[in-house]
This record gives sequence, C-alpha cells and structure tokens, in this order.
Amino acid sequence: MVTHVTEEIPRSVWYGWGDPTRARPLSPGALEFMRRTLKLGSVAAVHPPVDLSEVRVGSVSLDDAVLAELRAITGEDHVATDATSRILHAGGKSTPDLMRRRGGDALGAPDAVVFPGSAEDVRAILALCVQRKLAVVAFGGGTSVVGGVEPLRGRLAGVITLDMRRMDQLLHVDPLARTATFEAGIRGPAIEAALVPHGFTLGHFPQSHQEATLGGYVATRSAGQASTGYGRSDELVKSAHLETPVGPFDVGSPAPGSAAGPKLLDVVVGSEGTLGVITSASVKVVPVPAEKVYGSWSFPSFEAGAEAMRRLKHDGARGDMPQVCRLSDTDETASTFKLGGWKTGTLGRYLRVRGQKTPAMALFVWEGDGRQAKAGKRRSARIMRAAGGISMGPLPGKSWEHGRFSGPYLRDELLTRGVYVETLETAASWGKVAETYTGVRAAILGALEANGGGAYVQTHISHVYSDGASLYFTFLAGLEEDGLAQNARVKAAASKAIVAAGATITHHHAVGIDHAPYMGAEIGELGIKVLAGIKDTLDPEGIMNPGKLIPAASSTAPAADSTDSAKSAEM
Amino acid sequence: MVTHVTEEIPRSVWYGWGDPTRARPLSPGALEFMRRTLKLGSVAAVHPPVDLSEVRVGSVSLDDAVLAELRAITGEDHVATDATSRILHAGGKSTPDLMRRRGGDALGAPDAVVFPGSAEDVRAILALCVQRKLAVVAFGGGTSVVGGVEPLRGRLAGVITLDMRRMDQLLHVDPLARTATFEAGIRGPAIEAALVPHGFTLGHFPQSHQEATLGGYVATRSAGQASTGYGRSDELVKSAHLETPVGPFDVGSPAPGSAAGPKLLDVVVGSEGTLGVITSASVKVVPVPAEKVYGSWSFPSFEAGAEAMRRLKHDGARGDMPQVCRLSDTDETASTFKLGGWKTGTLGRYLRVRGQKTPAMALFVWEGDGRQAKAGKRRSARIMRAAGGISMGPLPGKSWEHGRFSGPYLRDELLTRGVYVETLETAASWGKVAETYTGVRAAILGALEANGGGAYVQTHISHVYSDGASLYFTFLAGLEEDGLAQNARVKAAASKAIVAAGATITHHHAVGIDHAPYMGAEIGELGIKVLAGIKDTLDPEGIMNPGKLIPAASSTAPAADSTDSAKSAEM
Repeated sequence: MVTHVTEEIPRSVWYGWGDPTRARPLSPGALEFMRRTLKLGSVAAVHPPVDLSEVRVGSVSLDDAVLAELRAITGEDHVATDATSRILHAGGKSTPDLMRRRGGDALGAPDAVVFPGSAEDVRAILALCVQRKLAVVAFGGGTSVVGGVEPLRGRLAGVITLDMRRMDQLLHVDPLARTATFEAGIRGPAIEAALVPHGFTLGHFPQSHQEATLGGYVATRSAGQASTGYGRSDELVKSAHLETPVGPFDVGSPAPGSAAGPKLLDVVVGSEGTLGVITSASVKVVPVPAEKVYGSWSFPSFEAGAEAMRRLKHDGARGDMPQVCRLSDTDETASTFKLGGWKTGTLGRYLRVRGQKTPAMALFVWEGDGRQAKAGKRRSARIMRAAGGISMGPLPGKSWEHGRFSGPYLRDELLTRGVYVETLETAASWGKVAETYTGVRAAILGALEANGGGAYVQTHISHVYSDGASLYFTFLAGLEEDGLAQNARVKAAASKAIVAAGATITHHHAVGIDHAPYMGAEIGELGIKVLAGIKDTLDPEGIMNPGKLIPAASSTAPAADSTDSAKSAEM
Repeated sequence: MVTHVTEEIPRSVWYGWGDPTRARPLSPGALEFMRRTLKLGSVAAVHPPVDLSEVRVGSVSLDDAVLAELRAITGEDHVATDATSRILHAGGKSTPDLMRRRGGDALGAPDAVVFPGSAEDVRAILALCVQRKLAVVAFGGGTSVVGGVEPLRGRLAGVITLDMRRMDQLLHVDPLARTATFEAGIRGPAIEAALVPHGFTLGHFPQSHQEATLGGYVATRSAGQASTGYGRSDELVKSAHLETPVGPFDVGSPAPGSAAGPKLLDVVVGSEGTLGVITSASVKVVPVPAEKVYGSWSFPSFEAGAEAMRRLKHDGARGDMPQVCRLSDTDETASTFKLGGWKTGTLGRYLRVRGQKTPAMALFVWEGDGRQAKAGKRRSARIMRAAGGISMGPLPGKSWEHGRFSGPYLRDELLTRGVYVETLETAASWGKVAETYTGVRAAILGALEANGGGAYVQTHISHVYSDGASLYFTFLAGLEEDGLAQNARVKAAASKAIVAAGATITHHHAVGIDHAPYMGAEIGELGIKVLAGIKDTLDPEGIMNPGKLIPAASSTAPAADSTDSAKSAEM
C-alpha cells in the first residue's frame, strides 16, 4: 500500500515558505549555472529579509468595542492584533508579496486576525462586520500567489482576516458513496492522515499542498500534481457549506446526478472568498492505491512530447492514463539534468546518438492496484515509442517526486541571493498549445530582458486533458532595484500573450487581484456582471474579500473612498 | 464499427409522440396483463384524441405591427399564427400535457410561433419582445415532461414560442481537442449523422433522443441511456452561446482547465430557457466505438443488484464500466419477461432452482475497441458472480436496445385505452438508494390506489455513479375521470417522498413548472435568491420562459396581473 501522507510542516515563516531550517540549499553548480545564465556578477546571499522588528505595520483601525465583540464570539484567545500575527496575514506567497514583506512593508496587514472555531462563529463575525462595515478576508494556508488573501479594505472602515486553522476536523466519511466531509481549515497533509484509517485518499497535491487548506482548494478551483488522474478540486468537491453575510448557504447535495437547474455548487467553487466563507466541504475520495509505478520518456522536442501526451490520452485504453503526467520543455529538461546531478555526459551522448540533441522529458506515475498500474505503463510504452519517445526508466519520476514540494523554499534562497523568480500558468486546447507556449515564453523573456539583463524560462505541462493541456512557466532574472515594477512588467506581458493566444488567464492559481484585470477577456463584460450580481445577492454590503476576482471598474460597488492610501493604492 | 446513428423520425403529431403509424401496438398478452393488474373492466381503444379541428385555442393577442416586426426579422415564412402551429407548440410531452391536448384544450398555446434562422435573429426578437413586453419560450424538440416549454405569459402582454428547428447545423469540429460545435436546434439523430464523417459520436441517448435537440440537452442537464459511460450532458458541454435580453453571452472556453473564478457555464447549463436562448454549444465527442458487447445478469433482489452495480463501479478496473448500465427491479424484470415474449417457464424454473424466485435483471452494453470491451465484460463477470449474479447472456441487452426509444409511442396507445401512465426519476447516494426506492414506490402506489383502483409501478436504475445511482419509476393505473387531478395527486406524493428521502427532485427530467415548488427543498431559499438574482441580471424584464425553474413565490418578479385567466391559472 502506498502512503499519500506527507509531512505536516510548520506554518510558514512571516517572510517566506515553511520552516527555513528545513530548506535544502542550492548546490554550488546550480548557483554558478544561474549566475552565468542570468549574467549576474554575483549570487552571494546578501539580500536577506529585514528583521521582523523592523517591519512596518499600520495602526489598528478597529475600536475596542469591535474587538470586544469579536472576542465575545470566538473567546478571548482567538482575536489577535499584535504586529507579528498581523504581519503573518499581510498577504500571500506571490513573489511581490514576499518582496514587500522581506523589505519591511506590511502596511497592508489586517487590523485584526480572528480564529473562528465553528460555522456559527463565522456567521456571528460576518453579522458584526456587516453592521460595523468591516471587510473580511478568509485565510486558509495563506498560499495564494495572485493576491487572493491580501487584506484589502476597499471602501470599508477596516479589515479583519479570518484564519481558519481551528476548523480542521474530518466530520464524516460515507464509505459507500466514497465521500468525506471536512472543516475547511484542514491542511493537505492532515486531510490525507485523517483518511488513512478509512483506506481513502483525496489525491490532491498542489505544490502548496503542505500549507494549503481544503477551503482554499475549493475557493480557487485548484489543481494538483496528480490531477490528471484524480481530477481537479472542482471535480472532487460534491458540496460545500458557505457562511455569507446574508446567512448560511448549502450548495451541492449527496445525490449523485441532478438536473435541478443550474449547478450552484459551481458558483461557490472558485468564488475566492468574495461571496462568503467556506466552512466545510464534502469531497470525493478513492481507495489508497496499492502501488505506484514510475516511467519517463525523452522526446526530440517539446512539441513532439506534447503530441505524445495527447496520443496517450486519446489512444490509450481507458484507465491507462498515469495519475501524474508531466512534460518538461527542453530548457527545464536541461536544468533538471544539470541541477539533479545527473551523469549528463553519457546520457546526453546516448540521446544525441538517438537523434535527440535537446531532449524534452516526460515523467509519469501510475497509481492503482499493481496489475492495472503495470498494464497502464506497458500499454502506454507502445504509444510513447510510436511518438518518438526513448524510455529513461523510473528514476526521473522518483527524483521529481522526492522534491515535489520544495520549490517554494528555493525561491526564498533565490530572493536572498538577488535573483527574481516567479511562476505562472495557463491552459490551452491541443491545437493552441504550441502557439501559447511560444507566445507566452517569448513575452516573458522579452519583458525580463527589457533592461538588458539575462533571463531564463523553463516550462512544463503538468495536466493532460482530453481537449488540451496546462502550461506552467518558471522564470528567473537578476532582481532589479524596483522588483515590484519588474514583476508587474513581466506579469503584464505574459498575461497579454495568454489572452492573445486564446488560452485561459489561469489554470490553477486563480484570479485574486493579479488576474482580475483580465477577467473581461476571460468571461466577457456580461460574465462579470453576472458575477457581480451574484455577489450583490449574497454580500450586498460588499464586505467579502473586496478587490478580488471581480475587476473594480465593472463592480457594482461604489469606488473606493478610503483615505488609507497605503491600502487603497493596492486595490 | 458500430453506428450510433438512429432513425430521424418526423416531428411529433400534435397530441402525442412521433409518427403514430410507426408505433408497434401492444400485444394481446400485454393488454390482458395490464387489464388484470390494473383491475380494469376493459382496455378497449375507446378514448382517442379529439379531432384537430375541435381543439380549442385562444385568439392571438399580438397586434399586426408586432407580427410585421417579427416577420421583418426572420422573413415572411418564419412566423406562424395558424391554429395548428400554435397547437403543436402548446406544451411538451408530459402525460398531463397530452391529456389536455387529446381532450381538445390548447388554450395555453402561444400567440405566435417564430422560427429564427440565426443568433442574430434571436437577438433581434428578444430586443423586440423586451420592448413589447412579450414572453419568449425557446422550443427545441418540445419533449419536456415537466412543463418546461409551456408557453406561459406570466404578467406579460403575450407569449411567443421560438422553434429552433432551422438552426440545426454542425458549425465546427476540432479533431485534436475532440470537440464539436453545433447550432442548438439540431436533433439527436442529426447530431450523430453529422459526426459520422469525422469518426466521432456524442454518445447522448435520452429516450427522447430522436426528437430532442442539443439546446434542450444543455438547457436541462439531461442524461442519456449511455451516460454511465459517456457522461451526462452537463459533463459533455464545453461552452455555449446564449442570447439574452441584455445581449449575447458566451460561457465556457476552449481551454481545458481553468481556475478563473466560478464556472459560469454551469449557470447557463440547466437554466431551462429562463436566462436566454442557447443558440449554439460546443460539446465533447469521442471516437465511434469499434464494437458493442452485451451482457446481462440476474440477481435475487433489486437491493442485491444495486449492490452489484456499486461494486462494479468501485471494484472494477478503470475502464471496465459498461457505457449502458441498467438494473430493473423485480416488477420491471417480470414485465420484461412477460411482455417480451420470453420463455418464462423454463427461465423462471432455472432461476428458482438457483434461488432467485423474484429476479432483478441487469443489462450492460460495453462500447469501445473490441479487446477492451470484451476485457471489461470478462472482468466484470467476476464481480457480478461474487455479488450473487447469474449470467443471462447477451440477448436481454440487445432486446432492450431494439426498443429503447419506443416508450413514448406506448403511452399514446395506453391513453387511448384509458390507461394512465407516467414516469418520474430521482437519484440518491448509495446509502439512500434502498430507502428512496421503497419510499417513492410506496408513495406512488398509495396515491394511485387512493380511489380504490389497481396500480402498477416498475423501477430501474439507469445511471451508475461512484457516489450513487438514479431511480426511474414507470407507473400505470386506470385513467380516472379527472386525469389531471389523478396525475397531480401521484406526482405530489412521489415528490414529497423524494424530498423526505433526501434524494434529488429530478435526475434528468429537469425542473420546469412541475418541480419548481420543490426547488426550496433542493437548493434552499438562498439558492433560489441566487437564481433569481442571476435572472435579474440577464433578463431584467422577466420575458424569458416565465414560471419555470424558479418558484413563483420567491421570484423577484411581481405577481401575475394578466387578465387572461386561462393562461395565468396555469402558472
């Protein structure tokens, strides 16, 4: 029996990811590769975050009466207004979020952090916030990379963040229906640990898995590294309980198929905290797989590899699709070879002899009962070979799996070494994958190199669908003096290229603040009006996570009139 | 290669289904079984529909100027106000719909029937209807059995029905993404015929398949007889174009996976014409299967069979699930044996010897490449045997398939013979299937027998999900003098039993007028408010299909003030 239970890591340090003492530092070879590729004079670790005591955080704009009312709801210990708690909730985990906090700017911190213990607590808090005109931001793992948990107050008098960590229990398992109901604040590793005694797994492993919560998965339509097999979070969720400013709202039902009007569950899934607070959700679970089987294949180009992924999905027998299905472009493959300490000399010569000068590598993990997983691998091999693939054995898959959650730690080290690094993702139909890849990659490189510096982009497909695939870009450059402007420049260029290619503005990072300006291109002005109308029904005072998801210009809410320029500027 | 292309039948006769000359009459044995079971003196064909010339239809309440404007949009030939056209669009195909029309009552007919030729036509018609305060009912195949196409005018000055038959073209096939885009008015057989040159099938075969249209499938979240394998219509649709009273609205996108906020496609899918008119939709298609493989199994009871279905879904290898998966209860099995002219003596003795006095029969069709379909059948056989099943060979499946679309013809004959017959459906999670089955069945029998007559109910599961199954009830009784009251009585009793069991009010028939009163139990008062709010955004004047989906009491629209009592009474 395989275990899907991962290490339950400490909640993140205020300026970055997890527990920094657990980070594995970059090798000298990797650093030198970076220095040379990015044309940097040095990558010495000379840009550490400021000391926590130096971080600027505004004064609390809530009066004592409000704080007393909040404490009356949750209990004395569950309302925090100290600087550290507020800094820890000042934003998410995007690179600009980290830049701000590392530089000592937590002026966007919430006025208070409240830790509800139940749906009833949340209901009472929302009622109070409606009455007192306070914005409310739900906060699970705090891992948003699109500004989704940034405590904007909009036009309101103050903002509180609801940290959902106390609501982390498994409530119910229905073994016949294969569903499990959890409180929304439970984190990824705890979900898996709670399901073990029942023999089930959720199978949802985004890179943020160890920090992120079920409520966050549901609120953002997240996809995980094994979603090709287990499905996206929006496919896994069966029902949810939402506390809204106008009352509790149950969406979805235990009935398996229904034709009773529009599927309102899909209004709540992906609502990113703008309609209410998800306090619990029921999700599909499946038996823990008996075995994992690994495979990897090398292709002469990214395009050839992508075509092989499509054929695997279309021509393979039902059930042959690997749960994990990733294809790196030639750059990512080269860096994997180099940074992974592979014997690249021999391997490179072998692949060159076989006609693959710049290989693109695919990694697969089949999970299931041993016989079926092995049959899937065996039958897939025929399709891979026919598509020009050369088998590279099980090791690349195992090696990837070993480091699958370590990316965010690396970013903290890179920022300390003066290296800008960020990621973004999209998805396109098969006929548009190549064009989207080329266009977005060029846009990122162009924007990063605009000021004459070196830049590096690597890309992979991590989710294979019948109708297309995701594209995930990781890019690095020397950190400019105005890192926020540098980030805005590259993000805007990439987003425009995504829109131009007809791809989606986000495959699994969600909308938050960063993608809201592109929602018009994604869903149309009428789509935005529908979203704004739904929000008006459930959140007529506009207290729920203002400034996210729905672009400000199209919002039905009046324009910001806050005098707190530090915060309103970020809207 | 299998063909999924079915016969393109003529559009239905005004009082019933399809072309009556094609109906296969009931055998003397079947009639005698019916007479005895329902305790009827006679089942002679003495209740034919009235002559078309005797059907009452109200005067047209549109002035000539409006008709001229409609004709200016669509062309002279595409606006009909003659009695026959209006009678043909006076309602759908529920038993009470047929009772009314057979009895000569088409007072609910629309003022005009308009046949748009393009999305632009629809847009112009909606603009005119907003201006003139006219209700608009979209009409595809007209096969709704829940009042979904009844031309209610609500509080408006008149009502027109948009018959979508002219918009029946395949617009685009993307063979790489395996999607196809059709105009919404295309009927089931034409969908399949259009896909044949591309090697694809939609795989969507509701019993109404030969009449129903793609727009109707999307508008109602329909499920077909092979949806266990191919998926429900709400799983097949990728994007749709809706013409709303406030303008065109595109939902969904070609990108395969997106996290860009709530999935607005799922607001339009299932909207039942209340938000706008679906004029085209893109759907997933798959290669036409190379082969069909049939199997059937007998179980000692319906409960044992249901448990076998669950085990097949849960314990079978991925890909072993048959595309068609049906389980009849013991009554439906007995009537299949009897009415199908089976050699029930020998068969019954054999099953009794094996311990199955009252068997429940399951039918399966595996579709795919031959090897995989056969492997699915072979491996499934182990699960069936372990669950107490006795193999009955391929014939029952083939026999069922032969008559799969003939049910509606039988109803017309039964009504002529004074026999009331109707169907309804629900779905429940596995833990609730038995309770729902027992409760709803008892409620139907109780309501039918309330006046001392005989009654008959048979039930099947036709859709097997990981978390539960559908339940489809067919019930008969002697037609009472007030057939509409009889129907309302049994429908109310069944609906209450469904709600009490925590099952869904509709698995694939949709909401229409009939289920609207139960939407509060299904989605809650806040859910209804959200639906009404979405409608206010897209249809602020309330012209789109009034009186459907959203229960009147919770609607944001003012109460009916029409003086046309014949029509407003039906709201």
